Amino acid sequence: MIIVMQVGATDEQVQNVAQLIRDNGYEPLVLPGEGRVAIGIPASLSNEMRTDMEVRISAMEGVSKVTQTSHPYKLASREYHKSNMVIDVKGYKIGGDEFAVMGGPCSVESYEQFLASAQAIKASGAKILRGGAFKPRTSPYSFQGLALEGLKIMKQVADETGLLTITEVMSGDMVTTVAEYTDILQIGARSMQNFPLLIEAGKSGKPVFLKRGPSATIDEFLLAAEYVLNAGNPNVMLCERGIIAFDRAYTRNTLDLSAVPVLKEASHLPVIVDPSHGTGVAKYVTPMALAAMVAGADGVMVEMHPNPKEALSDGSQALTTEVFSKLMDELRRLSPFVGRNV
Amino acid sequence: MIIVMQVGATDEQVQNVAQLIRDNGYEPLVLPGEGRVAIGIPASLSNEMRTDMEVRISAMEGVSKVTQTSHPYKLASREYHKSNMVIDVKGYKIGGDEFAVMGGPCSVESYEQFLASAQAIKASGAKILRGGAFKPRTSPYSFQGLALEGLKIMKQVADETGLLTITEVMSGDMVTTVAEYTDILQIGARSMQNFPLLIEAGKSGKPVFLKRGPSATIDEFLLAAEYVLNAGNPNVMLCERGIIAFDRAYTRNTLDLSAVPVLKEASHLPVIVDPSHGTGVAKYVTPMALAAMVAGADGVMVEMHPNPKEALSDGSQALTTEVFSKLMDELRRLSPFVGRNV
Amino acid sequence: MIIVMQVGATDEQVQNVAQLIRDNGYEPLVLPGEGRVAIGIPASLSNEMRTDMEVRISAMEGVSKVTQTSHPYKLASREYHKSNMVIDVKGYKIGGDEFAVMGGPCSVESYEQFLASAQAIKASGAKILRGGAFKPRTSPYSFQGLALEGLKIMKQVADETGLLTITEVMSGDMVTTVAEYTDILQIGARSMQNFPLLIEAGKSGKPVFLKRGPSATIDEFLLAAEYVLNAGNPNVMLCERGIIAFDRAYTRNTLDLSAVPVLKEASHLPVIVDPSHGTGVAKYVTPMALAAMVAGADGVMVEMHPNPKEALSDGSQALTTEVFSKLMDELRRLSPFVGRNV
Amino acid sequence: MIIVMQVGATDEQVQNVAQLIRDNGYEPLVLPGEGRVAIGIPASLSNEMRTDMEVRISAMEGVSKVTQTSHPYKLASREYHKSNMVIDVKGYKIGGDEFAVMGGPCSVESYEQFLASAQAIKASGAKILRGGAFKPRTSPYSFQGLALEGLKIMKQVADETGLLTITEVMSGDMVTTVAEYTDILQIGARSMQNFPLLIEAGKSGKPVFLKRGPSATIDEFLLAAEYVLNAGNPNVMLCERGIIAFDRAYTRNTLDLSAVPVLKEASHLPVIVDPSHGTGVAKYVTPMALAAMVAGADGVMVEMHPNPKEALSDGSQALTTEVFSKLMDELRRLSPFVGRNV
Repeated sequence: MIIVMQVGATDEQVQNVAQLIRDNGYEPLVLPGEGRVAIGIPASLSNEMRTDMEVRISAMEGVSKVTQTSHPYKLASREYHKSNMVIDVKGYKIGGDEFAVMGGPCSVESYEQFLASAQAIKASGAKILRGGAFKPRTSPYSFQGLALEGLKIMKQVADETGLLTITEVMSGDMVTTVAEYTDILQIGARSMQNFPLLIEAGKSGKPVFLKRGPSATIDEFLLAAEYVLNAGNPNVMLCERGIIAFDRAYTRNTLDLSAVPVLKEASHLPVIVDPSHGTGVAKYVTPMALAAMVAGADGVMVEMHPNPKEALSDGSQALTTEVFSKLMDELRRLSPFVGRNV
Repeated sequence: MIIVMQVGATDEQVQNVAQLIRDNGYEPLVLPGEGRVAIGIPASLSNEMRTDMEVRISAMEGVSKVTQTSHPYKLASREYHKSNMVIDVKGYKIGGDEFAVMGGPCSVESYEQFLASAQAIKASGAKILRGGAFKPRTSPYSFQGLALEGLKIMKQVADETGLLTITEVMSGDMVTTVAEYTDILQIGARSMQNFPLLIEAGKSGKPVFLKRGPSATIDEFLLAAEYVLNAGNPNVMLCERGIIAFDRAYTRNTLDLSAVPVLKEASHLPVIVDPSHGTGVAKYVTPMALAAMVAGADGVMVEMHPNPKEALSDGSQALTTEVFSKLMDELRRLSPFVGRNV
Repeated sequence: MIIVMQVGATDEQVQNVAQLIRDNGYEPLVLPGEGRVAIGIPASLSNEMRTDMEVRISAMEGVSKVTQTSHPYKLASREYHKSNMVIDVKGYKIGGDEFAVMGGPCSVESYEQFLASAQAIKASGAKILRGGAFKPRTSPYSFQGLALEGLKIMKQVADETGLLTITEVMSGDMVTTVAEYTDILQIGARSMQNFPLLIEAGKSGKPVFLKRGPSATIDEFLLAAEYVLNAGNPNVMLCERGIIAFDRAYTRNTLDLSAVPVLKEASHLPVIVDPSHGTGVAKYVTPMALAAMVAGADGVMVEMHPNPKEALSDGSQALTTEVFSKLMDELRRLSPFVGRNV
Repeated sequence: MIIVMQVGATDEQVQNVAQLIRDNGYEPLVLPGEGRVAIGIPASLSNEMRTDMEVRISAMEGVSKVTQTSHPYKLASREYHKSNMVIDVKGYKIGGDEFAVMGGPCSVESYEQFLASAQAIKASGAKILRGGAFKPRTSPYSFQGLALEGLKIMKQVADETGLLTITEVMSGDMVTTVAEYTDILQIGARSMQNFPLLIEAGKSGKPVFLKRGPSATIDEFLLAAEYVLNAGNPNVMLCERGIIAFDRAYTRNTLDLSAVPVLKEASHLPVIVDPSHGTGVAKYVTPMALAAMVAGADGVMVEMHPNPKEALSDGSQALTTEVFSKLMDELRRLSPFVGRNV
């Protein structure tokens, strides 16, 4: 940690900071400069210590800025887990040689709609079926999902088709219930910092698919993953799904594709891209899914609906079954370039 | 609702959209243009209808853009509730002639710390005491609050000092518990779209203090309020607390002060400004609190700590008791300009 | 154009808007609704007319919002120029089958440095050499480029190696001079709305490489291109080079890669991606360059320096000659997927 | 300057960085840590040196991050110029006891329109008349201003009314011409980093009114001012006029009002707020102008038009003469609070 003092900070102010560091068991290194003084703490602080010290020192008189010289996350960091994390979902491996495609409708609307979706997914060669039973919706007047009935449909269709499933859980007290019906727990972008939910998902041990919040920094995203990891669950996937956009005339969000190589370097966890929410427009899904593969992603999540016009939510970004099938073909055609299987 | 077709959309595509509108019981108005066709629906759609129609039509072939001509919120709108909402918290009125100041530490750390805070708040003339018992923290390694013990300290100190209290609740299943110990339920910025929590807070009937998410639009913010209102609770305060900043070198967030007149015009609900989180820097709190009053806010929430250097969280933005007291004096000196009491 | 009136707008206010439309020679379509009235203008307005009408009507009493139903650009639009624009730079075609790679150092620093760069570019198989003679720098104390001497070095090196060149021009009065020494005029991100410069670049007839401003919307970007096109120069390339980021801890900007399919659909102009400025970090350049190719870009601009450690500007994002050469190999290996030549 | 090495950086990499620092005449302080090494340079580097060193070191192997411990601007900094800068414009002092109000239409449209504006400004008690002769417009099809004719009208009206004037100059080669006709040179938001223009404005010695770019950080803004100051002109005013917004449904930009206390602390230069462009909506101008005064601004720039409906540009944000006059009354009523004259 580096503390930069204000220009004109008094000796006493400098000594007060140095003393606080000593009081915590570290030896400060005072770096005098012509214009201002900096103080270094040449040691790896524990996470608790670094946070507490930053807060306390920031509030001291004469202090201009406190800079951390290490990242705030630990369990989510590749520095502590060198090799790629490969997550085993009932035998299907995510984060390894497979490029994982998760497809399906935004919402589970009925047994028929969801079965048709599953059959199209299966026919295309994808292995994981997505669908929302509990839907977080911006407006209370929008369709909120079939809830428990949706979960049951999902489970039944999974049993009938042999596909793996992923669905969203919106609050900590629902984790146990949702975990009974699905293979992967999705934590949505709006819930990325729902800490009670993160902790319960961590305790469940189930594979967790964590979406990045629209204004979350990389550090905040990895710290959210850290909550799950710290609760004892190493099976976390990171999903980039678009960040807040200042121009929404053509896309709903800004898909931050450079987050893929950034996350792959900073962390050992698998990285999945969601070009459907990332762009919000069906016609941009295919080029961005392909770009995600080349940028180093471990998979994509794509919305597909057997009849997008009839979709009860997010119809404008869902692919038809035909376009989804073509996307799978394109991913397969591109996969040798990255040395992966689709 | 206005549907703009793509340049070159076929007659059949135009007719399909028109037919869908008719199928839903409305008469479409087709506006031919030289370059492209627009279709209007000259009626006030219900909220369910407008959302469903937008989703369906957006997914239709030949459609370029769907524009809503009315706002998506209703109960939160001044169009439906002309006069200012005045919320009665045990006899103290928020949203009327009083300019409400809510002060106190980020976290309840101990009985002694919280009592000292309360006494300073009371001495300054403020009426509402804030303090966190459950703390949402970006890092799992940061202090997470005293939880139930914190709530009990808060209640005890409130009883001893006669101050009103506000504290955060982080999940729906905790609403009933937290509501027993406090006068106002705070929903934090990270929870603005925690819909199960919003619904439970709505059912509780308690005054709700809703913070704007860092990347929430005005419409999304008011729709979050709509969830609470729609669950039967008219007592909602809106809090602007800073939006996501692209420059964090000097302030932690960007305080969006023009949101105050915007919200006051769009909605009847009281608007409170939090300059402590809004700037993240103690020295900018006073000028921004004064600016908030002049811009039309109904109150401010300000962090104060009897000893900011010892604070377990957010110390760098907390005012000392002396500076807080001076802020109260300044607000009092300014209050005649806006015709309010402090 | 659609005008949405406020709830409660009077008949007189509605008639005033309708009359203004009639006064300008159009027939308004008034769409009554239960809650509010909308007024449509079913015609393609000229660009001058649409802008003027929007300004005037927005200021009228009772008006809530004016929505354009068509895009504000015309010459830059694919609606008016269906096929891809292919730009001929001394026989090398940009926007067609070739995937154009522009490489070279941020700044021309000396004859030796620039010749070494050019030789590396040529050896790698790239055809276009970039280098700054006039450097826009955030700080007045940073290296500002060799100016005219830099242009002369560039020309000499181009003559000796047979490479095409591109360099930035920063003001309208320098267009003629810079155009004498280079094959493509670059307009930098900070100059995207330097309108006198755009007009002069338009008059020059030279191929223009226009970088998107860090906070420019797609419409603003295409309108900047429209300035050049409107001055009589059809040879404009659009360059996405990263937009303003709220998280700068890992990348300098946010590379907006979905802008590629958006721009390719909205416009016929070639689209080039600059992953060097887009990320600001050398190690992320290769994955993002590959992603750009797959997303549909017509080329990339990449910073390379024979000795990045010695670079006088932007060294941290420049590739070494070895890494640049490997990037070319990777692009070549990927090119069959998109059916282009590198 | 602090250099943080990567975890696992080799001793040789650390020594290479230390050696480069020594080669430049400074003594490095190596701070070993358990996890990673940091290296400090305990000296005030010149601006040239700090920039060069940052670029070179950032590109070295094993380096994770380079952090500057001082601000990159010098002449614009309050650290070097303790007292407030008071700018004398023909005897009228900006930055001192006066709260400067600059009012007038977006564009000079005709002698009659501009004279009517000037008379309203004068009657309201404001002293400075604004108006654009050269208009930077997003679209080439929008009204571009009367150019030289506009300047002549401005000068004539100024002579007739005794008001001071301010108008925009868009390129370096026009500075001399524009300076003949006006008292203050305005550099628009889009030109904030038009460095040739900044340098020419600096050479002119005329008071310069510098608008912040929509995505400019505080450091970038002050470095733009530094260009003018460094060219020998100490008379620079800083104008906050709204930054890029992610929500444009209610305001055009986000007025960053906390930039006022930030800039007043960081710099000695006067700070002016433009709530007209900052919000883009006439009805929000008055509350935000009042808030600006209380936040510590030295003045405001406000658009006013004798007939907003007829305005050739930006009519929707212009105040009528009546509303402008009331704003002046309100500012006058508020001024004792801040101890200034209006």
